[in-house]
Amino acid sequence: MTTWSTSPNLALNEVVDRRRAEGVPIVHLGFGESRLPVFAPLLDRLRAGAPTNAYGPVSGDLAVRAAVAGYFARRRLPTDPEQVVLAPGSKPLLMAIQHVVPGDVLLPRPCWNSYAPQARLAGKTPIGVPIPRDCGGVPDPDGLRARIRAARADGLDPRIVVLTLPDNPTGTLAPPDLVRRLCSIAEAEDLLVVSDEIYRDVVHDPKATELLSPAEVVPERTVVTTGLSKSLALGGWRIGAARFPAGARGAGIRAEVVAVASELWSTLARPMQEVARYVFEEPPEIRERLAASARLHGAVARAVYTLAVGAGAECRPPTGAFYVYPDFEPLRGPLGALGVTDSASLQRRLLDECGIAVLAGHLLGDDPGALRFKAATSMLYGDTIAEQEAALADPAPTELPHVRAGLAAIEAGFGTLGG
Amino acid sequence: MTTWSTSPNLALNEVVDRRRAEGVPIVHLGFGESRLPVFAPLLDRLRAGAPTNAYGPVSGDLAVRAAVAGYFARRRLPTDPEQVVLAPGSKPLLMAIQHVVPGDVLLPRPCWNSYAPQARLAGKTPIGVPIPRDCGGVPDPDGLRARIRAARADGLDPRIVVLTLPDNPTGTLAPPDLVRRLCSIAEAEDLLVVSDEIYRDVVHDPKATELLSPAEVVPERTVVTTGLSKSLALGGWRIGAARFPAGARGAGIRAEVVAVASELWSTLARPMQEVARYVFEEPPEIRERLAASARLHGAVARAVYTLAVGAGAECRPPTGAFYVYPDFEPLRGPLGALGVTDSASLQRRLLDECGIAVLAGHLLGDDPGALRFKAATSMLYGDTIAEQEAALADPAPTELPHVRAGLAAIEAGFGTLGG
Repeated sequence: MTTWSTSPNLALNEVVDRRRAEGVPIVHLGFGESRLPVFAPLLDRLRAGAPTNAYGPVSGDLAVRAAVAGYFARRRLPTDPEQVVLAPGSKPLLMAIQHVVPGDVLLPRPCWNSYAPQARLAGKTPIGVPIPRDCGGVPDPDGLRARIRAARADGLDPRIVVLTLPDNPTGTLAPPDLVRRLCSIAEAEDLLVVSDEIYRDVVHDPKATELLSPAEVVPERTVVTTGLSKSLALGGWRIGAARFPAGARGAGIRAEVVAVASELWSTLARPMQEVARYVFEEPPEIRERLAASARLHGAVARAVYTLAVGAGAECRPPTGAFYVYPDFEPLRGPLGALGVTDSASLQRRLLDECGIAVLAGHLLGDDPGALRFKAATSMLYGDTIAEQEAALADPAPTELPHVRAGLAAIEAGFGTLGG
Repeated sequence: MTTWSTSPNLALNEVVDRRRAEGVPIVHLGFGESRLPVFAPLLDRLRAGAPTNAYGPVSGDLAVRAAVAGYFARRRLPTDPEQVVLAPGSKPLLMAIQHVVPGDVLLPRPCWNSYAPQARLAGKTPIGVPIPRDCGGVPDPDGLRARIRAARADGLDPRIVVLTLPDNPTGTLAPPDLVRRLCSIAEAEDLLVVSDEIYRDVVHDPKATELLSPAEVVPERTVVTTGLSKSLALGGWRIGAARFPAGARGAGIRAEVVAVASELWSTLARPMQEVARYVFEEPPEIRERLAASARLHGAVARAVYTLAVGAGAECRPPTGAFYVYPDFEPLRGPLGALGVTDSASLQRRLLDECGIAVLAGHLLGDDPGALRFKAATSMLYGDTIAEQEAALADPAPTELPHVRAGLAAIEAGFGTLGG
């Protein structure tokens, strides 16, 4: 019997909350939360949806599914509402997909920390495949082919590959040609593609960074998941959605996911469905909010990236989400003199000596001996709603005093890693 | 690989919605939903909780867990907030418990239709044990001992027993002496007791019907689950809670449930947590609402019970929840002449010929050849909020014209079953 431990990002979050409650100042970069206030019109939508207290359809109300279908259609993915399922976050949807699709699961290495435990909960073996040099969120195609062969030789049955576009934890986006190569492997090896696109609306500069969804390339074998936790800072509201392929195979997977949903969570809370309907219809004020948020995420992620590189780390330049994933391998010598020899000791040192909370790479499936970690830069926008709104409105948010203070603490902390 | 089908109650609910949309009149007794409006103060609590958008602790905020602890303490179950976990419904909590506790699961037969699929999702075998003659929600103690021995001989490993107090689907409550007998078997056989007490506040006459929780008898081996879907008609809001045993074993189970929660659903939506805090603190207006709801549920359940018995069925008199579970075995002769020979054909005939939706017993794990079904009487309170509030306020709700109309349709439908 497996013993289950709390998701390391949520566990770290609770550690940070406790230390802060004790008065210890912490720059918290260890949790993938967009630290921005609720967009005001959503408060009214939640209230408008409140009188609806019946269970309703498991997959969500038709009007809500239609709104989600429209959202995808505006992203070159024509969608019928019957392809959509809503849920309390994309997390339970990803879990349900693992329950109903047979076989083992190929994951980028590193990747979001819940994919692998979910695979194990569904009785599957997660199979990590290193990411390419230039971006994360996808297995390196050459490594993927080799790993599939090796896994089959070991008696495993890889049938699903998870892609994260844009990526958590690297803050990068696989370019279209790479996505096409992965899709062609998925076709050749008969893999279902689960494309986690929860950061899709957090591409920092959508004009400069093209996102190609696998659902455009191999539509009959791609499930797309999304949610409002990241783009609209609604982690605590728990709103997610999935788009299943059109056609018989997709309908079959969707029907089984709805079946599992009926046993696991019944439906997305109805008041939250009204919020989802409003957001996924994307009125102008929502589009503006999404664009402003993405600009802020980009500006601050780039600033932290610059500090990491300045401190001697290697790092992929971030283009989406709100993370950087530096590699302090170039400082292995001086770090070793400090007792830092792996990602666990690196995380510990940053927390205990520098007051900086990050998530060690091994907690994301990465090589434990590597000197890598994830820094969630979205926690730097301020502690008050006024500070956060100011960061969102400012054309140069990294110049705001409270953001600068956080960046200065990071610069100082990173600066100690060279010994 | 198992193929998953939608929970039959939720599936039937969708069939009824479609037929009604086509203009077919249906008396809907097939879905366990309290058809009452949202209690008005809850709308304000939801709004008050809306600005909280961060993820927060997986188990729920301390203030909310403290409120739940107080709720249990007022029911003779002293509870520390650290024993409590909140979730989007009790359903995911029941699932997580199955994931973390090893062994197979003993279930009353019939029982709520999600326990067995959840067991299968967790890789367990559900083991049905017939209920006693006088009440449901618990396995018959004599049958339980024998079934455990037989299961072990078959290579199974029964380690959990689920009790439903009061019971869905029979609308009855196991008396204290029976609960004590079951607890002593749980102790002798080293079983964890999962006591689903979601209908605890829907005992029709709490003075006449004593509820003994297994957590009072074998506290170190009982997990209690509850939620607001039934007592406050909040199925669509998805609010549930669990109380784990004090002490090391209970803390261990709880820690693993929180771990699984962190991978499956993250947390109960924060605005809903504010609703939960308010309700579980049980201010006077909540107690009054709960008492009025329980009175209404009792009056209407008894009326349907009387109609079933009047039509020739055997039936346990309901004392809790909002169900009756009649057995039309005495009419097997005339029913056979109508082509009704099992619970599936009985459900079909009532839906197609009488416009009455019920849930066939075999969908709840009962013998498919038996002529039994569950009727959820809480769907009779009216289609409008005004009708529902009138039913709630009236000392004789079964005399209200719209409730009488539903009862008359049931009487007419049941009357045709005698041929």
